[in-house]
Amino acid sequence: MNAHPWLEIHRTVRFSDTDAAGVMHFQNLLGWCHQAWEQSLEQFGIPVGVVFPGGRSDQPSVALPIVHCHADFRAPMHVGDAIVIELQPKRIDPSCFEVMSSFRLSEQEIASGCLRHVAIDAGSRRRCLTPEPIDRWIEASNLGQIQPL
Amino acid sequence: MNAHPWLEIHRTVRFSDTDAAGVMHFQNLLGWCHQAWEQSLEQFGIPVGVVFPGGRSDQPSVALPIVHCHADFRAPMHVGDAIVIELQPKRIDPSCFEVMSSFRLSEQEIASGCLRHVAIDAGSRRRCLTPEPIDRWIEASNLGQIQPL
Amino acid sequence: MNAHPWLEIHRTVRFSDTDAAGVMHFQNLLGWCHQAWEQSLEQFGIPVGVVFPGGRSDQPSVALPIVHCHADFRAPMHVGDAIVIELQPKRIDPSCFEVMSSFRLSEQEIASGCLRHVAIDAGSRRRCLTPEPIDRWIEASNLGQIQPL
Amino acid sequence: MNAHPWLEIHRTVRFSDTDAAGVMHFQNLLGWCHQAWEQSLEQFGIPVGVVFPGGRSDQPSVALPIVHCHADFRAPMHVGDAIVIELQPKRIDPSCFEVMSSFRLSEQEIASGCLRHVAIDAGSRRRCLTPEPIDRWIEASNLGQIQPL
Repeated sequence: MNAHPWLEIHRTVRFSDTDAAGVMHFQNLLGWCHQAWEQSLEQFGIPVGVVFPGGRSDQPSVALPIVHCHADFRAPMHVGDAIVIELQPKRIDPSCFEVMSSFRLSEQEIASGCLRHVAIDAGSRRRCLTPEPIDRWIEASNLGQIQPL
Repeated sequence: MNAHPWLEIHRTVRFSDTDAAGVMHFQNLLGWCHQAWEQSLEQFGIPVGVVFPGGRSDQPSVALPIVHCHADFRAPMHVGDAIVIELQPKRIDPSCFEVMSSFRLSEQEIASGCLRHVAIDAGSRRRCLTPEPIDRWIEASNLGQIQPL
Repeated sequence: MNAHPWLEIHRTVRFSDTDAAGVMHFQNLLGWCHQAWEQSLEQFGIPVGVVFPGGRSDQPSVALPIVHCHADFRAPMHVGDAIVIELQPKRIDPSCFEVMSSFRLSEQEIASGCLRHVAIDAGSRRRCLTPEPIDRWIEASNLGQIQPL
Repeated sequence: MNAHPWLEIHRTVRFSDTDAAGVMHFQNLLGWCHQAWEQSLEQFGIPVGVVFPGGRSDQPSVALPIVHCHADFRAPMHVGDAIVIELQPKRIDPSCFEVMSSFRLSEQEIASGCLRHVAIDAGSRRRCLTPEPIDRWIEASNLGQIQPL
């Protein structure tokens, strides 16, 4: 269980999430991972336009492209399922981090997904430090977690 | 302003909603219309699995395919925009209804969309009456609205 | 039947196009309309990066946001259906045009969609003339068509 | 280079594939993997309705849910990029296989993705043998490949 409310996102499976097999289409889970991360940043207090292009404020000078993602599917998700998404960020190095999303239905983990981002200067496209708001979110997320010795 | 809380949905534009023009991709607005409708039914008290295929309960015997949709776009939607969606259902005939969605940002209507459904028997694919829960939702939605004399 | 090969696009319904009702999800048809238009421009000889943002060349100075769209659905589309899309552009005024897409399966029209675009200066967002390549595509498309007297 | 034409798929990045960063949205690559696989089966001669639900023929008795996927992104994909997708299936065990997709632009690999499927009986949802058409496709794909000794 996560100590921080801003790392817990609630979302319901919609009809458009499904495919003709009658359950959530695998690809949409990856979309949920990114959208849950955006919502978590907002709940933590970071305006998403500071982090992502396409907002109404000045466009961010650092981009955070995904260089790797993976997901595991343990049980199908159905229309109307009320899913709890638990986010767990992980610092990889000063320009790289991952966000793991765990999807639970009635306390059972039914899927998980992971997105790995690198920070690059939006102009030169060279690697750079992750933006300060992201640093704060990662650090705050790890506070109060039980760490291995 | 709508008299019924179950007709008002709040949603924030996410990064995946945008395209390379930096604003919400037109097609996603149609998706929002349907998803807002599903959420409205839930808020009204109708389990979505009763209405849509793909749920965990028995599959519904009546399908509600969309036979027509349209949308108008007045201003762009940006990442992080907190949108209020106001739904307005309209009975067309005993087997047909429309749901109009109005999208507002800071009290300004920036887009609207409309989905027209017909009820068909899921087996025979012949037209039939709209399901009872949909009838209730449409009727309750129209209660208390100012009607033309 | 259309006189111009660049106005005819072939596409097969994929699993991800479907929803739990077992047929193509309505929203995807609108996406097909835009994608078919892009493909038509390419087949006509216009590099899409000249028209749409996000290409590898200089970003276009004119944007073509959609201000209205509509679609009609006459019969369901199934996984594996080989669809023929016939495009028909229509000039509305010097800064506005529509592209109608007709979807046929085995010579039967099963759906149609229409996207209306306005040309705006990407910087000032004021209305302007449609870009010259679009003008050429519209004009060439209408050549050889039987016109009402 | 792949020996079999049915394992090579050509596809162009469309406007709807992009996000406000101006390049292909990561999630869509996973969609491309599955769609390329469907196209490869078709090119090989397998009607997709035999394999996937939602077709016009009898619904298949075996489902092939994805239990794991991953993707790596090496360079951005832009609107109009003409991508070559090379598929490489891999048998894991009698009820499990993977399809790796390699995305190349001008001979450079810019991304790759992998989908792992298990075969389950669509009724009981128990693991079963992969369907015979899938077996044939996997076996034919591996013929003529240089194998490690």
